[in-house]
Amino acid sequence: MIPRGGSGGAGPRRRLGAWGFEGETYLPSPQMLAWLQRRIGASSPYPTLDLARLAAPTPQPLPSLPVEQSADALDRLTHARGQGLTDLLRLRGGAVPALPDAVVRPQSAAEVESILRGCAAAGVRVIPWGGGTSVTGGVNVIPGAAPVVSLDLAALTGLQSLDETSQLAVFGAGTSGPAIEAALRERGCTLGHFPQSWELSTLGGWVATRASGQESLGYGDMHHMAAGLELVAPNGRMDLPAFPSSAAGPDLRHLVLGSEGRLGVITRVTVRIRPLPPLVRAAATLLPSWQDGLDAVRALVQQAVPLTLIRLSDEPETETAMAIGLSRHPWVAGLVRGGLRLRGIRGSGCLMLCGAAGDERQVREALERTTAVLRAHGGVGLGTGPGRRWLAERFRHPYLRDALLDRGIATDTLETAAPWSRVPQLADDVRRALSSALAGENEATAVLCHVSHPYRDGASLYFTFFFRCPTDVERAVARWATLKRTATAAIVAGGGTLSHHHGVGSWHAPWFKEEVGEVGVRVLSAAARTLDPTGILNPHVLLDPIDRLEV
Amino acid sequence: MIPRGGSGGAGPRRRLGAWGFEGETYLPSPQMLAWLQRRIGASSPYPTLDLARLAAPTPQPLPSLPVEQSADALDRLTHARGQGLTDLLRLRGGAVPALPDAVVRPQSAAEVESILRGCAAAGVRVIPWGGGTSVTGGVNVIPGAAPVVSLDLAALTGLQSLDETSQLAVFGAGTSGPAIEAALRERGCTLGHFPQSWELSTLGGWVATRASGQESLGYGDMHHMAAGLELVAPNGRMDLPAFPSSAAGPDLRHLVLGSEGRLGVITRVTVRIRPLPPLVRAAATLLPSWQDGLDAVRALVQQAVPLTLIRLSDEPETETAMAIGLSRHPWVAGLVRGGLRLRGIRGSGCLMLCGAAGDERQVREALERTTAVLRAHGGVGLGTGPGRRWLAERFRHPYLRDALLDRGIATDTLETAAPWSRVPQLADDVRRALSSALAGENEATAVLCHVSHPYRDGASLYFTFFFRCPTDVERAVARWATLKRTATAAIVAGGGTLSHHHGVGSWHAPWFKEEVGEVGVRVLSAAARTLDPTGILNPHVLLDPIDRLEV
Repeated sequence: MIPRGGSGGAGPRRRLGAWGFEGETYLPSPQMLAWLQRRIGASSPYPTLDLARLAAPTPQPLPSLPVEQSADALDRLTHARGQGLTDLLRLRGGAVPALPDAVVRPQSAAEVESILRGCAAAGVRVIPWGGGTSVTGGVNVIPGAAPVVSLDLAALTGLQSLDETSQLAVFGAGTSGPAIEAALRERGCTLGHFPQSWELSTLGGWVATRASGQESLGYGDMHHMAAGLELVAPNGRMDLPAFPSSAAGPDLRHLVLGSEGRLGVITRVTVRIRPLPPLVRAAATLLPSWQDGLDAVRALVQQAVPLTLIRLSDEPETETAMAIGLSRHPWVAGLVRGGLRLRGIRGSGCLMLCGAAGDERQVREALERTTAVLRAHGGVGLGTGPGRRWLAERFRHPYLRDALLDRGIATDTLETAAPWSRVPQLADDVRRALSSALAGENEATAVLCHVSHPYRDGASLYFTFFFRCPTDVERAVARWATLKRTATAAIVAGGGTLSHHHGVGSWHAPWFKEEVGEVGVRVLSAAARTLDPTGILNPHVLLDPIDRLEV
Repeated sequence: MIPRGGSGGAGPRRRLGAWGFEGETYLPSPQMLAWLQRRIGASSPYPTLDLARLAAPTPQPLPSLPVEQSADALDRLTHARGQGLTDLLRLRGGAVPALPDAVVRPQSAAEVESILRGCAAAGVRVIPWGGGTSVTGGVNVIPGAAPVVSLDLAALTGLQSLDETSQLAVFGAGTSGPAIEAALRERGCTLGHFPQSWELSTLGGWVATRASGQESLGYGDMHHMAAGLELVAPNGRMDLPAFPSSAAGPDLRHLVLGSEGRLGVITRVTVRIRPLPPLVRAAATLLPSWQDGLDAVRALVQQAVPLTLIRLSDEPETETAMAIGLSRHPWVAGLVRGGLRLRGIRGSGCLMLCGAAGDERQVREALERTTAVLRAHGGVGLGTGPGRRWLAERFRHPYLRDALLDRGIATDTLETAAPWSRVPQLADDVRRALSSALAGENEATAVLCHVSHPYRDGASLYFTFFFRCPTDVERAVARWATLKRTATAAIVAGGGTLSHHHGVGSWHAPWFKEEVGEVGVRVLSAAARTLDPTGILNPHVLLDPIDRLEV
């Protein structure tokens, strides 16, 4: 049994076995629950967290390290798993297979280096920990003989320097999204990186997973933002300077970006920043169909309309968005539907949000150009209300997952990206794979899809799926694993990348070779051996092909 | 002695020991020669090419390979050196230290693979050859015990597929700039990559050196364009698919980009293309000073004015541009100077070209926004005449080097990039280093500088320098090496990257460790060992720290 308390600190307290902070919640509307019940059937509540059910095995002995080792049971449990669906299922179900033997919180890159050397010498696995928000098993403790230390970067935080002329800022890798934006806002700047996990995740984690924020269209992905960085490995340190561009050999930053703690611990990052825009505004439009929407997104991006954000929902996602967003004023939904039918949109249509940032004139011009393009694709404007609401609530959406699980509805997301020419078929393939994956169990899956990161040459596809959650933890995990395996196989077969922004972690690792090839895996393994000869660093991500979906 | 003929083929014939094609020339104006003589003194003609002076040692025996081996002396000589200044000095001076023992021209990636396996088994060095335009010793044959094969990609050319929806095109790596643009133009598209070497250089070479074209501001650098690629190495093949973005582990494309033939042979590249703009127009402006110009360039880029091209020349470069460009109508120069003095610009001012591409409205709007920004920095518009002339003649400028050498004036270029905050000091440091490097020999150096690749966070600095060329080849090479060593040391000390777009080659390799660190070198060496265990591939670039400036 785990005693309460221990991993304290200032500020709101993180929830265990759930998203976010204590006291926050986001409840599904009755309309949404009805929509889900129609699709997947009625469900029974999943167990809630009960610390009394969770065991904390006695930690294995660890070598002496230059920093304090926390063996506090709750601290260890808090660092045992990320934020993937099965992480919550296992914590709530009282079935966490392994905990780290200690948590360490180094105060400097030099301390990180000493810890790694000590652990390498003693054969102790080290899992770097930023915000702990991985949804790919990227920070999970896998049962095994070697002891495990969770290396929490919570003390390597804050703005270290700012070069306003060059629009470059240096932060400790453990700095969270809100802390970064607060530090920059004081100086009239922004990073512009707003992933769904923004409130909890950290800069180092973003780099380690090649993250993308919701405004990536305007500000770029993390691999565009990270201009320089420091990586500390058991076998040495890489300090890669920030250049605007360079032809001095292969770009080693891109070996660190996406390395998921397997090659070293990212301790410091130089990021490209921007002036804080005085205004961010998003306009909502309904497109007659998914294909119309895809064509419109592609036109906007290929015509370089200066937007910072485009999101296009398919019909089912549009229906749920309506069910959530319009639930407070049901009569509005009726009016909207009537108006749409008049303009030729049957069914729900496809909701699209287009956001622009800048001063009043820049935002107005960008949205006017957008409107012109969308009209040509049959779009019907819904004004800026839905966008305003979405911007205000976007970081609260993840709380919905916990509230649904309380009602026995499991939900998870997965994502990919592909060239435009493959996007429609790939979306169909993955939808079909998810929808039919549980047919053998006579279970239905509800699937929503959206495009949220468009590029000139292609786009991401983001799927949200819902299924009835068995109350038994192992059966629940197995059902999810079936869905995940089926969908991942469909993504790979359909020519999509294994992940657009969630990363590989341990859950996608069995398919990694199909994406980069056997030679690619060998090259990365050689890099890993050079930096971490004994393979202590997060050894079960990226390069370990064993299927651990049910661990 | 080398017999004429042999390396024939259709189309205009490449010149040996000089830039470009037979029959082309670009003569310095009398004004330019006078300007140079004032700065570096009078000079004596450097020897011209004389095949009778060039020896072709008997080739070493080679293993049997699956393709024809050309042992033709002129073919071997043509593949002995790139287009760096000393390459020309050595060819014209009759002092080429080593030739490849054969030239091979594989017809497919499979043939490349067989050649590499055969050479690896027999300990034969292989130097991949695209356009042969390296200015960093990147394709040079270094004397040594192991035989050398030049692997010419001339047969791996052409458009292999086009995905217009996704704006992606697949080309053989040996395809030249003009062949790429011709194939795309037929389909209403462009790659938009126009390096100075465009007429001769190839896609594979651009990827191998992380090239940047003159319109990189609009179209991106080669590392933005290369979405997917195939690399063939002695130990296997990597076929990296084209995704718009991916978080599936480290991005291995960035290990191939900049690998300079050290990790494998690039055989195929998927590039991001664009619709061919109906119009390209460049406006010229004079800025009162270099610092005003830098501030203006930075403002344009950080305000995201949609330009495709910005070039800012310092005062000396502006003077020579005037001396060249206005020489046909000397009275215009007088009028321009009078007008400038009225508006407060003393001396030459700094010439800036700003180019935009698109339809008439887009180009006009971009240039209007540009004018507004430049006026705020004291800019005086010179209209579109200079830009039109520059666009028309830009690929002829390299011919000037040969004509100057005929007159005993050696000229070379080098470049770097740095964050904006370091740009002014770095430019001064490198100018000073070049200007004073030959003081011990009582020789002067004339130095020009421009910014041609600006980014939000920094810019490239491109230096052109002129010195009196000794007529003795070894003395000429030694003088150049002194300049190069002094300037490279200044670049590294001043916080610039070793190269913005020329690459590392063998000439910058001694400084490479200072840029990526000892651990960085070890990681790259491990990647090289994995792909090329016996180290046969272009072994003297990137990772070989021996100073070969005088080889």
